[in-house]
Amino acid sequence: MNYPPALRRLINELIKLPTIGEKTALRLAYQIVLQPSSGAQLSEAIRSAVEQVRLCEECFSLTEEQVCAVCQDPSRSRDLICVVEKPTDVYAVERSGSFRGLYHVLHGLWSPLKGVGPDDTRLDELLKRLSGVDRLTGRPFEEVLLATGTTVEGDATALYIAHRIAALGIKSTRIAQGLPKGGELEFVDDVTLTHAIAGRKSL
Amino acid sequence: MNYPPALRRLINELIKLPTIGEKTALRLAYQIVLQPSSGAQLSEAIRSAVEQVRLCEECFSLTEEQVCAVCQDPSRSRDLICVVEKPTDVYAVERSGSFRGLYHVLHGLWSPLKGVGPDDTRLDELLKRLSGVDRLTGRPFEEVLLATGTTVEGDATALYIAHRIAALGIKSTRIAQGLPKGGELEFVDDVTLTHAIAGRKSL
Repeated sequence: MNYPPALRRLINELIKLPTIGEKTALRLAYQIVLQPSSGAQLSEAIRSAVEQVRLCEECFSLTEEQVCAVCQDPSRSRDLICVVEKPTDVYAVERSGSFRGLYHVLHGLWSPLKGVGPDDTRLDELLKRLSGVDRLTGRPFEEVLLATGTTVEGDATALYIAHRIAALGIKSTRIAQGLPKGGELEFVDDVTLTHAIAGRKSL
Repeated sequence: MNYPPALRRLINELIKLPTIGEKTALRLAYQIVLQPSSGAQLSEAIRSAVEQVRLCEECFSLTEEQVCAVCQDPSRSRDLICVVEKPTDVYAVERSGSFRGLYHVLHGLWSPLKGVGPDDTRLDELLKRLSGVDRLTGRPFEEVLLATGTTVEGDATALYIAHRIAALGIKSTRIAQGLPKGGELEFVDDVTLTHAIAGRKSL
């Protein structure tokens, strides 16, 4: 006995999503067909998100307009750009409330092992943006905060970008590495501890 | 900075699905809007599954026809009905290749704590089906294999159904409980071990 064809097709589409395996897809598909009204709403929500959400022409985060809300906001520190890997990272930084500058989303990290080079990301667009001036203020950019993750790829990408930016006379900074809040020394890994000690600050 | 409205709506719909929390929903939503073509396919697959997949009028498993393939198959043992909780269970039993009878999907288990009684499941339909004859052969049913899970609710439901069926003169059987294949005694829980010992068989 096989799945009904429409169910099989739905399962196949669900499996393409990240974190969804065969079993989860099956479970989700059942839920969807057993609750037709919320299934229809989900289908409609996907359709309209696909149609309406696009990349900001300035910073490549997600928006429904040509340019996103942050890039349109004159009250932000417009000489400072935070470079992140993914659109989700923008929301993480925004949630922390600790950054009031602009963003640039790379949509990828430099990863030779995966065959992803700097040209596969939005690096060119960043360099072009940095070599010009801010759209609203007409003033040049002063600092680029490299906020890619602290993985091998994240570090390599940050170093590479810092290298490329150096020629433009713009300051590159990297988010600090150290113990997470609430971290206990005995449970923290060696690399993190090494970074935390090397990056110690006077009180 | 808030999510674009269409993205927020999509996240809200995704969260309604089982096993999907806020973070997973966000990740899925990004994937969907960043790959518009597969997003459109997913939306379409959901729409057509919702429209086409329905419950079999006989056994309440999923099908695109009035009556499912199993219920239409004259080569199955049509005097034996396997009672399961969910449509997914039907596919699990079918995959095992160990059962050639018919099915009946309850769509729920008896669970007083959750306020779910026998009437909230497809029990009435089962009793009605059992008090009649098989649609194809015109012969009465002989055995009901109660294959609900071995949880408290699964056991209670099986016992309750066995009690209700007794009056019809149909044999009730319950799937065996014991050690799973590859199970080691030292890692198995006490209840399972108790069942495995109580249900021992001569070699």
